Amino acid sequence: MNPMALSYDQHFQSAIARLKMENRYRIFANLERDAARFPTALWRPEGEEHAPREVTIWCSNDYLAMGGHPASLDAARDALERHGAGAGGTRNISGTHHPIVELEAELSDLHGKPAALVFTSGWVSNLASISTIATLLPNCLILSDALNHNSMIEGVRRSGCEKQVWRHNDVDHLEELLQAAGRDRAKLIVFESLYSMDGDIAPVEKIVALAEKYNALTYVDEVHAVGMYGARGGGICQREGVESRVDVIEGTLAKGFGALGGYIAASPAIVDAVRSYAPQFIFTTTLPPMVAACARAAVRHLKHSGEERARHQHMALLTKHALRAAGLPVMDNVSHIVPVMVGDAARCKAASDLLLRRHSIYIQPINYPTVAIGTERLRITPTPRHDEAHVAELVEAMVDVWSTLGLPFTESHVIPLQARASASRGPCAYLELKNAAE
Amino acid sequence: MNPMALSYDQHFQSAIARLKMENRYRIFANLERDAARFPTALWRPEGEEHAPREVTIWCSNDYLAMGGHPASLDAARDALERHGAGAGGTRNISGTHHPIVELEAELSDLHGKPAALVFTSGWVSNLASISTIATLLPNCLILSDALNHNSMIEGVRRSGCEKQVWRHNDVDHLEELLQAAGRDRAKLIVFESLYSMDGDIAPVEKIVALAEKYNALTYVDEVHAVGMYGARGGGICQREGVESRVDVIEGTLAKGFGALGGYIAASPAIVDAVRSYAPQFIFTTTLPPMVAACARAAVRHLKHSGEERARHQHMALLTKHALRAAGLPVMDNVSHIVPVMVGDAARCKAASDLLLRRHSIYIQPINYPTVAIGTERLRITPTPRHDEAHVAELVEAMVDVWSTLGLPFTESHVIPLQARASASRGPCAYLELKNAAE
Repeated sequence: MNPMALSYDQHFQSAIARLKMENRYRIFANLERDAARFPTALWRPEGEEHAPREVTIWCSNDYLAMGGHPASLDAARDALERHGAGAGGTRNISGTHHPIVELEAELSDLHGKPAALVFTSGWVSNLASISTIATLLPNCLILSDALNHNSMIEGVRRSGCEKQVWRHNDVDHLEELLQAAGRDRAKLIVFESLYSMDGDIAPVEKIVALAEKYNALTYVDEVHAVGMYGARGGGICQREGVESRVDVIEGTLAKGFGALGGYIAASPAIVDAVRSYAPQFIFTTTLPPMVAACARAAVRHLKHSGEERARHQHMALLTKHALRAAGLPVMDNVSHIVPVMVGDAARCKAASDLLLRRHSIYIQPINYPTVAIGTERLRITPTPRHDEAHVAELVEAMVDVWSTLGLPFTESHVIPLQARASASRGPCAYLELKNAAE
Repeated sequence: MNPMALSYDQHFQSAIARLKMENRYRIFANLERDAARFPTALWRPEGEEHAPREVTIWCSNDYLAMGGHPASLDAARDALERHGAGAGGTRNISGTHHPIVELEAELSDLHGKPAALVFTSGWVSNLASISTIATLLPNCLILSDALNHNSMIEGVRRSGCEKQVWRHNDVDHLEELLQAAGRDRAKLIVFESLYSMDGDIAPVEKIVALAEKYNALTYVDEVHAVGMYGARGGGICQREGVESRVDVIEGTLAKGFGALGGYIAASPAIVDAVRSYAPQFIFTTTLPPMVAACARAAVRHLKHSGEERARHQHMALLTKHALRAAGLPVMDNVSHIVPVMVGDAARCKAASDLLLRRHSIYIQPINYPTVAIGTERLRITPTPRHDEAHVAELVEAMVDVWSTLGLPFTESHVIPLQARASASRGPCAYLELKNAAE
């Protein structure tokens, strides 16, 4: 290193020290995923990499476990053998390979939109699409939900357009802003269909109706919904029957579809404009054929199979019920996300550490800035590959951690004792009870 | 679609019409890469997708053809079987899989830097790293080479820091700016080691010496050099012996290494700061294990094998000599890039179309904004998998296209006649001649 750089390094070191002081410093768990045994994985503790331990993953965004589905694996293997490891260039410079063309056609069909465009990540798809769409409209006003994801905020910011933030999921507030802007001004409403930290769902029909009333474009991020909701896995807008009334649907291939990449589906003019103007797209190497092929296989499979969606919802409900019955503070919502509230960064991290070290259960802490200070939580994501025995183990472990750390239980705290008693004999009594209640 | 959106669509349509009018509208060639037969591929002409045609790719950024190397394919296949198709989350949310940890260790070793960090693309790695590094330094001045890549410009812009542009590769101008800023101000010099459109190489030693003299940090983009230059494939800084004196080396896994993704290698404090602060990194799903594994295999292979590098340089030289001998206007440079100048967007596109349709040779046109108006070109990238017969075909085809379109030849235009005469009997006489001259 340049010796003079030492003074520079101090700035970086103190930036890191700040995070540590605020309990926001993140240590990544080194995990070895096992396609056949998911959600079981090997964890290599820092400094003990030689002695990996078996853990159960309870916080994967591979929501439907499609990353290990035979259809995905077969498609990836086949594309790898045929086309090699990489795309070899940007879309314009020799990188438009056949599997990416097929994937875009598949996504276009999934959402009933005439065109689709794939990016290397959901993050980049939001940055590129929101900024390009808004920039190409004269004097565009962007109306952004208060809890939009960082990638959407970055897209809005990059556009340089005026932005107004509407209170989260508050359509009355949105209407006020639309009305104030007037019908004639170009307006882009950006929002998510399913917010991943609280697991709540946007009133998509109402938002679309307002957009029609006030002549606004709508851009919806469905990354936590595609594959998982709607009759063909098209997301919340599909489920609510408003897919054709939304202008741009943005989704990911890395969560419900188990691969990597992001995309938009929209009119040919919008897709072509983003394709032609967004530097984030133009100057990036295309996803490898094997990634495009397995993503397409997952999309295709989930168009026809509702089994994974049904089991996913079942396991999410079961997990919520079991945790709640054990007196754990599960945040209420109507989705597959199971947030358990802690409300303090240090204790949230301690809970996560204890779950991993004592119980071999991996759920990373969710702290600021991902969520607001005071709302720190463990965010649990059951998948179709979790079973009732996994849920029983989870409840036992969470109860132990809550007791050990003195975290508050809710009123139903009578139940964990039963849970403890029954855990040793397999799927617990309270699980059966709660199953019946669904 | 929202019927009111029609008026919006007009804006997008006219944006596209503008590009068409300026001959800047890009049509992507739908190519089916064939791992075993690269650079041969199948091309599906638009509207004739049912009748694919065999073409030779001459513009791939899979510079060393590592995307089809057995070491890459084996590693990808193995990781796919073991770990499944995707990472399942961001680095913090269950996505730090073992192959990505191993890849970062491999890259850190490649560049002799204590730490490395992998992103989903080179584009994002520049955006994230430049903006984060500059933002964490008080009142940082960014000194940016005039021909820096779009992703670096976006990183500079995102930082919000003051920027000064130094004339391309002009160290005297750089020194003026450094001197004016003074030793005490935080300064970040951002530049590329090898500029991909002209193929020229930066005076890295001089830049690093100036950085030391004026106490500036250096950030070098080596995406068109890693794998291809230096004794172990570490790039131009490695070749020039200044690797340890550069602060941040940014590279890609998608070109010389044939996969996907970008990375930085630097001090632990810089890497940890980018890891901890860059939203572009924090909120993005990790590269799939199969992609990380095959990238690592390629990096590893090229550390020990110089064969691909030698053959790559040989084929680049051979191609330049052969084209030049045929009177084609090859831009002079000292790298593996072979730019052939056209100087007009419409004729550049016409040349590319004719090469593809008449000669089954794929070289996409490079027009504004990728290069300046008046410097439009065909950018040819020979790989170790091209052979002398490919070069002979290329020269024949280029001569025909130049003649057909009335594009100007250079003075040595006596030679193509020989080339024509000899092409029918395999590797041409002028190739043998030029081989001897190396």
